Amino acid sequence: MLQEVALRHGFREIQMPTFEELELFTKKSGPGIVEELYAFKDKGGRDLALRPEMTAQVMRFYVSDLSKRPKPLKLFYFGPCFRYENPQAGRFREFFQFGAEIIGSKTPETDAEAISLAVHQIRALGIDRFDVRIGFIGIYRELLRRLKLSDQDSAFALHLLDKGDIDEFRRFASTRKVPENMVENALSLRERKGGPEVLESVSLGPARDYLMELVDAVTALGVDRWQIDLGIIRGLDYYTGMVFEIDVPGLGAEKQICGGGSYDLVPLFGGEADVFTTGFALGFDRALLALEKEGVKIEDTPLEAYVIPVSETVRKKTLEITNTLRKSGISADFDPMRRSLSKGMKYASLIGARYAVIIGEKELLKGVVTVRDMRSGKQEEVDVSELVRHLKK
Amino acid sequence: MLQEVALRHGFREIQMPTFEELELFTKKSGPGIVEELYAFKDKGGRDLALRPEMTAQVMRFYVSDLSKRPKPLKLFYFGPCFRYENPQAGRFREFFQFGAEIIGSKTPETDAEAISLAVHQIRALGIDRFDVRIGFIGIYRELLRRLKLSDQDSAFALHLLDKGDIDEFRRFASTRKVPENMVENALSLRERKGGPEVLESVSLGPARDYLMELVDAVTALGVDRWQIDLGIIRGLDYYTGMVFEIDVPGLGAEKQICGGGSYDLVPLFGGEADVFTTGFALGFDRALLALEKEGVKIEDTPLEAYVIPVSETVRKKTLEITNTLRKSGISADFDPMRRSLSKGMKYASLIGARYAVIIGEKELLKGVVTVRDMRSGKQEEVDVSELVRHLKK
Repeated sequence: MLQEVALRHGFREIQMPTFEELELFTKKSGPGIVEELYAFKDKGGRDLALRPEMTAQVMRFYVSDLSKRPKPLKLFYFGPCFRYENPQAGRFREFFQFGAEIIGSKTPETDAEAISLAVHQIRALGIDRFDVRIGFIGIYRELLRRLKLSDQDSAFALHLLDKGDIDEFRRFASTRKVPENMVENALSLRERKGGPEVLESVSLGPARDYLMELVDAVTALGVDRWQIDLGIIRGLDYYTGMVFEIDVPGLGAEKQICGGGSYDLVPLFGGEADVFTTGFALGFDRALLALEKEGVKIEDTPLEAYVIPVSETVRKKTLEITNTLRKSGISADFDPMRRSLSKGMKYASLIGARYAVIIGEKELLKGVVTVRDMRSGKQEEVDVSELVRHLKK
Repeated sequence: MLQEVALRHGFREIQMPTFEELELFTKKSGPGIVEELYAFKDKGGRDLALRPEMTAQVMRFYVSDLSKRPKPLKLFYFGPCFRYENPQAGRFREFFQFGAEIIGSKTPETDAEAISLAVHQIRALGIDRFDVRIGFIGIYRELLRRLKLSDQDSAFALHLLDKGDIDEFRRFASTRKVPENMVENALSLRERKGGPEVLESVSLGPARDYLMELVDAVTALGVDRWQIDLGIIRGLDYYTGMVFEIDVPGLGAEKQICGGGSYDLVPLFGGEADVFTTGFALGFDRALLALEKEGVKIEDTPLEAYVIPVSETVRKKTLEITNTLRKSGISADFDPMRRSLSKGMKYASLIGARYAVIIGEKELLKGVVTVRDMRSGKQEEVDVSELVRHLKK
């Protein structure tokens, strides 16, 4: 389903290896990530790791193989990722991640398209209650740039803001001689959330127009619920402009099921400068937990037809009819265990089959079979030649 | 597609972890398997391994969680597996495997259903040229049982037959005082292949009737090409009766894309005795290689509609129309890079879009847009309200 929605949005699927050389992941996320990785040595002594996420792989692949493709390049992927940490509610050591990247474009619509795909995915999964919060880390970057702080100091200041460690942030700002009013400005930005009016209430420079266009585009793309939240910082160095998060409030502490933003990682993996990317990752396991919280039962599609012979003599015919139904696209099964009619009916009921198709020797001579509607209990004779049509209606 | 075919055959999907404690795999395949595994220690010093296949996991899960489910239990799975070996044509260190198991049934139809699913999968993938070979390792087991060889000796004798090491087999048989005529009997069984007449030509005991019923059932289930090949041994200890292999001759040395059989593994993982299983694994990467050899190009489904604004003023309308098309199930995209009409047309052509939908300000006032068929080059004006219907036809 996630795949179908992504294809409908013009994204194409790629598959990445499950493990890689460790260096690929430390390059993107820093050496600190090793603590959280399933890292190991192979028999040749190389340092490998199970992937914790897939963006680093996609960036590397873009640089090595896809950089000449027409832009923008819209890619998606789905697969298991791994994290070495104590398992707890909503945090697993192996988890499935869906992700998408739009490479080579940097406009409000690009960002809007990423948010729109994420929201349409979540809706397609059947989740109704979720909050879309859109921020802009670019505002803070601009502020820090004007203060002429070193890259390291800037990263540390953002880290403190992200963690909400206000006292420490104030202390750090005073050691770096940041004027009091700019400190308060940064702290008050963090509190701004709500509708488009938020954008009117603070001085944002060019970011204001950008965000205005972004939320217009998001709305035009069918996302009817969102709020501006300038407090979203996401403590990762590579985000440059828009950042967004989607939460399912019912999930408690681990309520975030999706996060992303626009970033600049291509040069890090050896590619050209200024190939901007917007992407996100959606936690599939948490999305399933969210569905559970909403009381949605995830049920298998039930079998459409269970074909049961009344006697040994029509066993071969049972298999042939099962095959005919399957060829017509109907899910059909038979009992390979050669049990009695009554046990066959019981099994059909246990697995939740929609219809039982009963094959009797006498009926077959008349060219008919008996079809039992397992919900209503109603039984009727149906011409063998009409069976597919009867079951499909 | 593999998933769809399996569901239509009444199988249900399960997902298994990517890595496990090493012991799970050595339990099924013996300590020799460690050589071929990506085995490593986690930070707690536990011996783990990336899964080389999924049957051991399914058996363990059956015993721990599924043993009370109605029988037969029909399960399938699809995912990456890992093998530590030198990469070469058709042998990868990470490869995707599709597999299926029918648990709790032991009849010719059970075996036939497994073969039938494998064949229908391969056909659904678009592979036309393949050979289905059906054998019966039970014949050899019966032979060895009558000779009263130890389990270890039996396994070694089968191993030699499997490898085709005839001289060594003769030598070994003579050290175990196996009568000459039984040695020749076993060796001649290995050469028997062909149609049902093969079953008439040798003394097979009860296996003959079983195999006759099996090939009848396979045929009734829509498998029209198969041959009996009593030379299939598959050097694994757990196969008990039917064994089968599917080859794509065009693939050369690594031509086998599917293999399976009926086996008895449930007791090994702590479950009840006599819960027989028939299963198989299908190598997805090799299947793709087979398609390539057949000259089949695996193409992405092309985008159906690329929506291009003629001017800035209709940008928002472009997004809204894109969203409307997507909601109707049409794959649609727009240019987030704000390029010109001519560049938009070029991109639509590069990505192979089926239609370009051109949004002009004057046309919109009339309530129409221009639709260009990118194959024929034909352009026509279409009512906005008719657009979905027009593109769907």
